[in-house]
Amino acid sequence: MDTTREYYLTWLRDAHAMEEQAITMMEGMAARLEHYPALKAKILQHVEETKGQLAALQSLLDRADTNSSMVKDTMGKIAAKGQAFGGMFTTDEVIKGAMASYTFEHMEIAAYEVLIATAQKLGDVEAVTVFEQILQQEYDMAAWLSDHTPETTDIYLSRSEADLEAKR
Amino acid sequence: MDTTREYYLTWLRDAHAMEEQAITMMEGMAARLEHYPALKAKILQHVEETKGQLAALQSLLDRADTNSSMVKDTMGKIAAKGQAFGGMFTTDEVIKGAMASYTFEHMEIAAYEVLIATAQKLGDVEAVTVFEQILQQEYDMAAWLSDHTPETTDIYLSRSEADLEAKR
Repeated sequence: MDTTREYYLTWLRDAHAMEEQAITMMEGMAARLEHYPALKAKILQHVEETKGQLAALQSLLDRADTNSSMVKDTMGKIAAKGQAFGGMFTTDEVIKGAMASYTFEHMEIAAYEVLIATAQKLGDVEAVTVFEQILQQEYDMAAWLSDHTPETTDIYLSRSEADLEAKR
Repeated sequence: MDTTREYYLTWLRDAHAMEEQAITMMEGMAARLEHYPALKAKILQHVEETKGQLAALQSLLDRADTNSSMVKDTMGKIAAKGQAFGGMFTTDEVIKGAMASYTFEHMEIAAYEVLIATAQKLGDVEAVTVFEQILQQEYDMAAWLSDHTPETTDIYLSRSEADLEAKR
């Protein structure tokens, strides 16, 4: 199972980089938002949740006891991946930002679904439990964003119609 | 409602560009896949569905009777947007490709949710019906991809363990 274990560690590190980038993206968006208090509050709440997810992922990485040279080698790659993730979704406009957040949540969901299948193959029950808990938080955030798309769109269009600043 | 109507047309054109890019991306992925027949067949089926979606979006654009100079002006922008969408998700590796497809489906879902809210504001019942039909197809495709993530991951890891070509 050496190959599977290698993929598991690679994808676990990818997930860690993805969540770090998610925090950067969400904090940037929350800081810009002015006229969407519900969205802003939800994003900030999910930032806190994501910090917990990062700690849980870090524990799994620590537990894997990867040797430090390997970690060092991949750090540059991880940083690049994180930037690539973020670059996809950076926008200063609330509709595109909310769509990007919803899209990014599903990149995360896909990543944890792959990690769950991989950890199951390795018989790593503890890791499966961690990923399932995180997955539920991502589903909840995605559902919130979807449920509030009509409201966000309505505020945006109503403010635009009234010649009020609508993007933030 | 002139401003709302302008946004509606912009987002409708964006959706058209997004679906064109989706076809390019899916056809590329289906052409590469060798060892994932179920995934390949599902993608090709969704390509056909997406062609129907493009025709439905084009009918809405035609019905809007946008003047041709406006259409001409935005064509360059649309092409650029389409490329940006696609560039995000191009990969030659099946796990990343399946994750990208699932992620892209949710960008589409978010786009139609915004369009539905906008068309509702305009009282455009016909457009709402079209978007809701497309939305259901996107949900179904996303659910299929999610349901088959364990299978795709398992094939990938099992082939990799056996030193067989796994990426395609």
